[in-house]
Amino acid sequence: MDCSEYFPIWDKLTPVQQNKIRGSAIRRSVKKGAVIHSGSTDCTGLLLIRSGHLRAYILSEDGREISIYRLFELDICLLSASCMMQNIQFDITIEAEKDSELWIIPPENYKELMEESAPLANYTNQIMASRFSEVMWLIEQIMWRSFDKRLAAFLLEESMIEETGRLRITHEKIGNHLGSAREVVTRMLHYFQKEGIVKLTRGSIEILDTKRLQELAHT
Amino acid sequence: MDCSEYFPIWDKLTPVQQNKIRGSAIRRSVKKGAVIHSGSTDCTGLLLIRSGHLRAYILSEDGREISIYRLFELDICLLSASCMMQNIQFDITIEAEKDSELWIIPPENYKELMEESAPLANYTNQIMASRFSEVMWLIEQIMWRSFDKRLAAFLLEESMIEETGRLRITHEKIGNHLGSAREVVTRMLHYFQKEGIVKLTRGSIEILDTKRLQELAHT
Repeated sequence: MDCSEYFPIWDKLTPVQQNKIRGSAIRRSVKKGAVIHSGSTDCTGLLLIRSGHLRAYILSEDGREISIYRLFELDICLLSASCMMQNIQFDITIEAEKDSELWIIPPENYKELMEESAPLANYTNQIMASRFSEVMWLIEQIMWRSFDKRLAAFLLEESMIEETGRLRITHEKIGNHLGSAREVVTRMLHYFQKEGIVKLTRGSIEILDTKRLQELAHT
Repeated sequence: MDCSEYFPIWDKLTPVQQNKIRGSAIRRSVKKGAVIHSGSTDCTGLLLIRSGHLRAYILSEDGREISIYRLFELDICLLSASCMMQNIQFDITIEAEKDSELWIIPPENYKELMEESAPLANYTNQIMASRFSEVMWLIEQIMWRSFDKRLAAFLLEESMIEETGRLRITHEKIGNHLGSAREVVTRMLHYFQKEGIVKLTRGSIEILDTKRLQELAHT
């Protein structure tokens, strides 16, 4: 486990502190679709992503979803250890979007270290600030950006993550990411198809005109 | 300046650190309507609210607003010192909603202390976590709550803050808080009036049926 890849402040920890992190980390493999952390009842711990791809989202009372952020290799998920921060008063769910390999650091160990190490506390602060920034970006999107642009940006992002122009994703799943009903996604995708931007087939969305999508996404 | 009121971890700072905070704090009075901090060009510093009432909001490119949180006596505003946290990548504006008295701690002084004191770094973390939680709550409101309920909750909140059942606030200002167009606010207020919940007069909104508002706000 090369901790300095996750913690740029690794050198500022004492050997004892370094061993505490390394010694407490638990290795875990999760399958695509697995829910790793669920709401406030769970306090899974800090997740360090070794490989794969996770999604953090919130759920409404009646089961609607919206993605809050996505996590990739070398990212750290802090909110899965929210029990160690008393002022975090919201529940997120974390799910594997691909088969993933993780390190999990138990929250009590991490909290103890954060309390004695200013560098670690400040670095944790930075991780939180990053997530906070992503959520602020999301608010701007929801408030001020029309759905066609958000969908265009999402298709481009997916295509980049999956490294393909032919996306195997259901309309419902896209709706869950963007916080919209499946019908709204389907309607807009049909509009994109009529405009020659995508081609829809059973279970897949083929991007035909990347340039138009980019124009939509960036205006 | 009684710093322990703002910093519950005051006793865990050394006398030198305590003096650094106390010695660098600048006292400032601001008038209602004054903009204290504006976007990323500013790095005002940490704001400690002595009295009054501030509002933090974000602005769209075409000038639309939505309130992110409000600050009252003894609150600390961290995001007005966002330059000291490299991962905060969004711009907020902070405006006085009432005449207010503040202490301002320059960002460079605070950052220096945060880097050497784990208790201060962790406390700063807690402040950020609180604001983060408020923003997550806001997303849930925007995504999953109908406008009548949000407006009802806002009227009750205003009435509590102002300690009156007769609110002197324009429809436009309400729209700015909630991220909605003035017309949408006016339409809903007229509906509330028709239902006997409020009475509208030039420049004011009188709450007639608090119970109905509460029912709306809490469902």
